[in-house]
Amino acid sequence: MARIAYEDLTPGRVIDLGKVEVDRDEMVAFAARFDPQPFHLDEEAGRNSVLGGLCASGWFTASLFMRAYVDNVLADSTSQGSPGGNELSWLAPVFPGDVLHFQLEVTGARRSHSRPNLGLVEITGTADRGGDRVLRFSFVGMFGTRDAD
Amino acid sequence: MARIAYEDLTPGRVIDLGKVEVDRDEMVAFAARFDPQPFHLDEEAGRNSVLGGLCASGWFTASLFMRAYVDNVLADSTSQGSPGGNELSWLAPVFPGDVLHFQLEVTGARRSHSRPNLGLVEITGTADRGGDRVLRFSFVGMFGTRDAD
Repeated sequence: MARIAYEDLTPGRVIDLGKVEVDRDEMVAFAARFDPQPFHLDEEAGRNSVLGGLCASGWFTASLFMRAYVDNVLADSTSQGSPGGNELSWLAPVFPGDVLHFQLEVTGARRSHSRPNLGLVEITGTADRGGDRVLRFSFVGMFGTRDAD
Repeated sequence: MARIAYEDLTPGRVIDLGKVEVDRDEMVAFAARFDPQPFHLDEEAGRNSVLGGLCASGWFTASLFMRAYVDNVLADSTSQGSPGGNELSWLAPVFPGDVLHFQLEVTGARRSHSRPNLGLVEITGTADRGGDRVLRFSFVGMFGTRDAD
């Protein structure tokens, strides 16, 4: 099958990015390096916080989404990176052992005016734990067009 | 000095979060785990990409910002976490050895209607390399008020 190009990412398309279980040790190690707030490091501090328990740095959850997105889409695509997004929402705390289900939906797509061989794709990525959405990231992905591939 | 509370984070306030040099090994290790795209892993793949060289995952740059924000603000504050943001922009690629200067500006603040002991602070965080802005993240931080502390 041809790799994923701009033409494949049509508005309305939904792509399943699989499930991942949150590993407690990795979650805490990430927080110790990048987000050492007490409720990300320590069980008791988490319980005593508004978050209700030891929970993941939002950047860890976002990074887990990114890995699932790379594995399931970008690794075999014409991706040229991303300029960023207009929504990054941490909707609920994520706890060790949670199983996160990642998914994306294409919400818009247009060719670049200045670089017609490049397409700008609007994507909303999500992470759900059972019926609860815990992460939403709406961003732009840049992909080469198939005619340029 | 009292720890940083909602009342301290008044619109217009700018807080310097210091400088960090991007470590190549850590940058690549982060990408190998969370964002294994060729231009984040390999010098030649980076040179052959639109990004122009081996460069950081945007999530790594954001995570470095977070650490600087924790060290300089959150560690001694009434922070209650963040529901997320409405802009996360990766404005230019970040390369090994780059020295990033992190800063934040408070752009808005109001008390929560439902929880008067909580304040919602609008913050724009940035990373600059020399005169070039490489990251902008506009988000909401939740902070306890001093009268509730």
